[in-house]
Amino acid sequence: MQKPLDIAVVGSGLVGSLLSLYLQRAGHRVTVYDRSQDIRNVNFSGRSINLVMSDRGWRAVAGAGITEEIKKIGIPVDKRAIHKLDSSVVFQPYGKEGQTIYSLSRGILNRKMIDLAEAAGVNFKFEQKVWDIDLAQASIQTGESERGEWTSHQHDLVFGSDGAFSRVRHKMQRQSMFNYSQEFLNIGYKELHIPANPDGSHQLDPHSLHIWPRGNFMLMALANLDGSFTCTLFMPHEGDFSFASLTDKALLEAFFAKHFPDTEQVIPDLVEDFFKNPTSYLVTMKCFPWTYQNKVALIGDACHAIVPFYGHGMNAGFEDISVLFELMDAHGDDWNAIFRAYENSRKPNADAIAELSYRNFMEMSSKTADENFLLQKEIERWFSDLHPDLWVPLYSRVTFSTEPYKQALEMGDFQNAIMEKVLALPGIKTNWKTAEVERFILSELSK
Amino acid sequence: MQKPLDIAVVGSGLVGSLLSLYLQRAGHRVTVYDRSQDIRNVNFSGRSINLVMSDRGWRAVAGAGITEEIKKIGIPVDKRAIHKLDSSVVFQPYGKEGQTIYSLSRGILNRKMIDLAEAAGVNFKFEQKVWDIDLAQASIQTGESERGEWTSHQHDLVFGSDGAFSRVRHKMQRQSMFNYSQEFLNIGYKELHIPANPDGSHQLDPHSLHIWPRGNFMLMALANLDGSFTCTLFMPHEGDFSFASLTDKALLEAFFAKHFPDTEQVIPDLVEDFFKNPTSYLVTMKCFPWTYQNKVALIGDACHAIVPFYGHGMNAGFEDISVLFELMDAHGDDWNAIFRAYENSRKPNADAIAELSYRNFMEMSSKTADENFLLQKEIERWFSDLHPDLWVPLYSRVTFSTEPYKQALEMGDFQNAIMEKVLALPGIKTNWKTAEVERFILSELSK
Repeated sequence: MQKPLDIAVVGSGLVGSLLSLYLQRAGHRVTVYDRSQDIRNVNFSGRSINLVMSDRGWRAVAGAGITEEIKKIGIPVDKRAIHKLDSSVVFQPYGKEGQTIYSLSRGILNRKMIDLAEAAGVNFKFEQKVWDIDLAQASIQTGESERGEWTSHQHDLVFGSDGAFSRVRHKMQRQSMFNYSQEFLNIGYKELHIPANPDGSHQLDPHSLHIWPRGNFMLMALANLDGSFTCTLFMPHEGDFSFASLTDKALLEAFFAKHFPDTEQVIPDLVEDFFKNPTSYLVTMKCFPWTYQNKVALIGDACHAIVPFYGHGMNAGFEDISVLFELMDAHGDDWNAIFRAYENSRKPNADAIAELSYRNFMEMSSKTADENFLLQKEIERWFSDLHPDLWVPLYSRVTFSTEPYKQALEMGDFQNAIMEKVLALPGIKTNWKTAEVERFILSELSK
Repeated sequence: MQKPLDIAVVGSGLVGSLLSLYLQRAGHRVTVYDRSQDIRNVNFSGRSINLVMSDRGWRAVAGAGITEEIKKIGIPVDKRAIHKLDSSVVFQPYGKEGQTIYSLSRGILNRKMIDLAEAAGVNFKFEQKVWDIDLAQASIQTGESERGEWTSHQHDLVFGSDGAFSRVRHKMQRQSMFNYSQEFLNIGYKELHIPANPDGSHQLDPHSLHIWPRGNFMLMALANLDGSFTCTLFMPHEGDFSFASLTDKALLEAFFAKHFPDTEQVIPDLVEDFFKNPTSYLVTMKCFPWTYQNKVALIGDACHAIVPFYGHGMNAGFEDISVLFELMDAHGDDWNAIFRAYENSRKPNADAIAELSYRNFMEMSSKTADENFLLQKEIERWFSDLHPDLWVPLYSRVTFSTEPYKQALEMGDFQNAIMEKVLALPGIKTNWKTAEVERFILSELSK
């Protein structure tokens, strides 16, 4: 057991609240500062994308002993439902029988996590805006405004779990030798809504992630417990087929009628929601180092914000917590050693999930509608069933395992190179379930 | 002629002072704000690297009609002098007969540029710290400290020429869709000094850029008008052969005696300067966009800070000014059009010189000591003399032309691929000045 410390956690989002629970359980005194109101007392923003919890997230949740509480508020999802332009639907399982991810509403999950952390003794201070931090002293400055009066709060350690626009990182960024990048995607997103049936049931299959892949734009939907779906429209900010091009009701309705004809019945408030809800931005943010001496550490989106197309922002942040606590077990009170090992272990994996997430927009928006891609998935599933130890598909490595992301990315690239050769074999489209194809893949794998 | 505007230039460095002169001459009222004291009244910092002015810089200087004034304070340099470990020296011309770059002291050049701009009517305000800027209003806030009282200054346009750590860019960076990266090199640098002979003459050839290439570290020296040389030691911050490893007088002297034996006589104050002068950092900074509506534009290091190994930081910044003024001629009072064309024209070229500069550390520190590299340079020079229209070497494209950097980089890569094949020809080392090699290169060029 570590010597108990007075620890500040900046940010009460998903990673901050779970981290605070872990730290409090480990015997530390934890204060969480958040610049916003208590999310338990406010309406949600209309700018959310539903989360999917997968193995890495569940591992961290299990470590805090709250698996059952979280499962209650999630809906298992075991496949993609791909809505074609002719309104037919193709289902594509994510993994093997029984392997599922869980759809969770960000707001509901966040409220639950704060409840659990508060019950464990964590002190939450809302509407406390952190403006500055003395890195060497682990003291933070809060106040109403950046130019107004500030109050200083002294702690032993500070964790910055304050998201992609982290104020803690902002201070670290002013040091020499601090590498940093932020890169915005030209794709934005907007929340839309599929309400429940009058009897409270779901209008679409709740156990599918629904996608309407249309090339450089797409619609997706994930189920909520109350029978509704949270939908997200992803499309370019500018250009043809962009948010900038849909300037009025008539253009919007014509666009949806042409590209998402089967949604007319299920999204009744399209026009109102579209023009009311904000268009949000997508950014990939990378930085290094993540820590300052034995005093300050960044965690979650504050040090590795990624685009949402693999559904791994929260899962990667939760995995930071799992790794951090393994290192706390290994290094005891040597926070210098803990922080160096933490950032060196996590950085390559954070870069890998950033890359995987970036690539997955193309997979979701274009490839899921592509015959060759669907054939590749079928061949991979067939070969993986024959040789489960020799072929774990990339999606399963990322989602249904805790294999380091970096290794998953490398293996995925290796497998993809093999599948490119397989798809180039003569007659493969009609004649793939053969001993010849099996032998070909086995021989490629052994190279 | 444009409608006269009230223009603020933030930063009185080389780019800011030349830009202010251009704007004032074009009929605008220009105020330059700088957070530091007037450089004309202070001693220089001991953290400078001498500048080299080449064709792009001279083009901008000529546009302001101040070529003769600047030539007077520079020293022409037409070759590298490569100091080998055995103290022998190899000379390597930069270009053709008569092609030179100019060595300039940053401080002396900056003082001269401010004098010239002030004489033209520019209003310089020193010790004015800019803390904030209202981008849409083109108003800037100055004050003694970030948290103290501020004074607001309203202008029609603001240019941010405030360097790699630009405060103007810092404000732009808070917008959505602003891409940004800063990446520090593990190589740092320190200024050292070769004094003049008692009679005021130079101890080494003043018309050479002197390099002591030693793999992952190197020393270089550029002449000053007063008979001295400004030397720069580049080496890693950490590790073997690093700034961190040279902790005392004995280690430092042994290091120089071993690796730079011929410098003992010419750098008498090595120990004092080494431990007195700061170790400086090298960063590559990229961002986009560079402008805000028709109100604010970044220029020079503020939007494209590069490492110094091609000697093009100032030249690239001065070229920004040349391009900006061409666009002002083309678009008149339409500053929206000027700024869009400016950033779109300059960004790819800024990225290209960043890449070229990054690569050139390897060329200067390692390749200049490499037999194959020297042979390649000889063959290129020979072929270029035979076919001057068909082969302009990369260094000449970058330095002795105003060909866009992006095109120079692409042509350089194309030529390098050819030279790799040439160097792989059998017997090339002894037998390269032949019609066969000439025909080989001609045939590769026509592919």
